[in-house]
Amino acid sequence: MPINHIEVCFTPGLFDFRLIRNDFVVVVVDVLRAGTSICAAFKKGIEKIIPVGDLEEVKKYKDSGYLVAGERDGLQLDFADFGNSPNEFADVDLESKTMAYSTTNGTQAIEIARKADSLAIGTFSNLTSIAGWLSEQDKNIVILCAGWKNAFSLEDTVFAGALIEKLTSNQYYGIAGDSVFASLKLWEIAKIDLDSFLRMGSHFERLKKIGAEDDFKFALKIDSTQVVPVLKDNYLINIRK
Amino acid sequence: MPINHIEVCFTPGLFDFRLIRNDFVVVVVDVLRAGTSICAAFKKGIEKIIPVGDLEEVKKYKDSGYLVAGERDGLQLDFADFGNSPNEFADVDLESKTMAYSTTNGTQAIEIARKADSLAIGTFSNLTSIAGWLSEQDKNIVILCAGWKNAFSLEDTVFAGALIEKLTSNQYYGIAGDSVFASLKLWEIAKIDLDSFLRMGSHFERLKKIGAEDDFKFALKIDSTQVVPVLKDNYLINIRK
Repeated sequence: MPINHIEVCFTPGLFDFRLIRNDFVVVVVDVLRAGTSICAAFKKGIEKIIPVGDLEEVKKYKDSGYLVAGERDGLQLDFADFGNSPNEFADVDLESKTMAYSTTNGTQAIEIARKADSLAIGTFSNLTSIAGWLSEQDKNIVILCAGWKNAFSLEDTVFAGALIEKLTSNQYYGIAGDSVFASLKLWEIAKIDLDSFLRMGSHFERLKKIGAEDDFKFALKIDSTQVVPVLKDNYLINIRK
Repeated sequence: MPINHIEVCFTPGLFDFRLIRNDFVVVVVDVLRAGTSICAAFKKGIEKIIPVGDLEEVKKYKDSGYLVAGERDGLQLDFADFGNSPNEFADVDLESKTMAYSTTNGTQAIEIARKADSLAIGTFSNLTSIAGWLSEQDKNIVILCAGWKNAFSLEDTVFAGALIEKLTSNQYYGIAGDSVFASLKLWEIAKIDLDSFLRMGSHFERLKKIGAEDDFKFALKIDSTQVVPVLKDNYLINIRK
């Protein structure tokens, strides 16, 4: 019999209605693009990322001399050093730096999920490492999809399915709610041709409009990093260097 | 180019975040079991069904001499004439009667969706007739899944996919959001063996526990009626007799 359960919340607005109430780790999923960008920054050696929901607050970090990354509706904040593209971190030195990060959906989802015992970031880019870390925690797992302004997002759900497949292939978890089964089924179809499947999503259209198709490709690469970003106090650190 | 759009809200809690804001019909979906029971009652000739969210209010209808159907957590309200089983209406005479109806999820979803221009009930039992009526409306369509206490429900989503397939085979609609594509994909897998697929859902388990497997079978029969229940003022009527 399973001791632990898995559940998927399709949007932050459903987090408070989750079935799993106690003793859980939350995995925040924002494949396009905050989650993938956060993993990319940790791969480049950044020390701390401070997720910030509020725009005024992120401006204060900038004024205090911090590196700042941020976007609203896909476009870089005018005062920020970086937008929300994982490709932006390819050629910069982030070693030992601290950066404040604010995005339309991803950092808002982190704000909502802070009440969990622990919080980590899961993306295709760190699929195997996040699944490995989760298996070690021996806790219930709530996968919280960032979605888009509280609407359901295809890519986050398909990733949830990929993570569930990975987790349940090593260890048996009980299923809390139908969202787990649906995510897994969507992943099973999507993985046949992940690129084509996720191009059907509205987020691909959104990225195409702003010329960010490269970010879409970047975000779909499985296991391009081994990082495990975990929230410690008010910042994310990589606990798997 | 499409003039009208379709969107799916997976739970009532997401209705206020919908992308379609104007000029829309809402289809409330509660396959197990309120929607299916409502269609079954109209098939038996009932004239009006008053959906009631609040328990106190439905008690008042009972005290005023109305027929009352209702359940909470699957079990019949102790003062009600009927629970929430479509099979209950098989051998009773409902011709020209009015009944107040209150359930855990279905009637709550109706309460939330009253702000639409018009509101109808869609189930597998009236799939073709509801799709036909919707096509005539020439409006945007929001499919609102009742879910289970604001959690995502497999059967309601799979029905949404069936309805979308039906609608888009006759007439082209634009898609508002990823939930439409996901519902359609789930329906495409589910329809190969609808019974087995939906037995994976938590609602099947819930019905099994209360000995209501017959209701599950009843609810999965496609086009067992031609009714189209539509909200008029504060009650539902069947506009396709």
